[in-house]
Amino acid sequence: MRTIKITPIGYVKNSRTEPIDDNWYPVESAIELADELPAECLDGIEEFSHLEIIYYFHRSSTDFIASGHPRENKAFPKVGIFAQRKKNRPNHLGTTIVRLLKREERRLYVSSLDAIDGTPVVDIKPVMKEFLPQDTLRQPEWSREIMKNYW
Amino acid sequence: MRTIKITPIGYVKNSRTEPIDDNWYPVESAIELADELPAECLDGIEEFSHLEIIYYFHRSSTDFIASGHPRENKAFPKVGIFAQRKKNRPNHLGTTIVRLLKREERRLYVSSLDAIDGTPVVDIKPVMKEFLPQDTLRQPEWSREIMKNYW
Repeated sequence: MRTIKITPIGYVKNSRTEPIDDNWYPVESAIELADELPAECLDGIEEFSHLEIIYYFHRSSTDFIASGHPRENKAFPKVGIFAQRKKNRPNHLGTTIVRLLKREERRLYVSSLDAIDGTPVVDIKPVMKEFLPQDTLRQPEWSREIMKNYW
Repeated sequence: MRTIKITPIGYVKNSRTEPIDDNWYPVESAIELADELPAECLDGIEEFSHLEIIYYFHRSSTDFIASGHPRENKAFPKVGIFAQRKKNRPNHLGTTIVRLLKREERRLYVSSLDAIDGTPVVDIKPVMKEFLPQDTLRQPEWSREIMKNYW
């Protein structure tokens, strides 16, 4: 299996130093551009209200699991790793849509980023309406349950 | 800058063999799980109507650009690479929300995946309503222009 090499393009700075599953809403974060990248990479980004952040679960040393119970809760069905958003994924990548609060030169201030302090960011993309689902979502009941206290 | 190694978890199969910017809507794709991964990684995925696919622009040998005109069209403002979704990104990662049509053992059939035949997939995540923007999006006029013929 061919290996792909990627490098952090920035790092998360916030007040959460331990991986905790819930209550992310009050956490505001800064994303600081990596030293190697010029500030102009962020030019024009403030025209967008929302950004998609792709990041790397750097503290997730836990092994990959092919399937398991969401939140290790046996009340929920056992489902494959690609049917849930758990950290124990093959490539330890996370993605989240955040709200952009402000840009300052090499730094973005965002809300609703569910990544802890020091997390390496590997990409930032602007969110466009045309890339969001245009029809109604269907999702299982367990996924609504685990999201109740997430934000 | 620390390097992160990732490996494909699957590959795209479809009828589009050349990177073309527009008219993705009619293209249906299959995502075939990499041989190394067990089929159970996909168990329960059919409970979700939409999936987020993270993939690697493997044909994008073009260098990283810090900023440029979207679609190389000078009628559009020059903006940073993180303020657009162009391929010339530091880590050549793409993400798209697709509709899941059907699962067959080690294969997912999806629509609205804007990746060409042979594209390595590096993650698949289920889309939950709670992870989509809960408030109104704001985006610049140029981004609406370039999306007019995208799907």
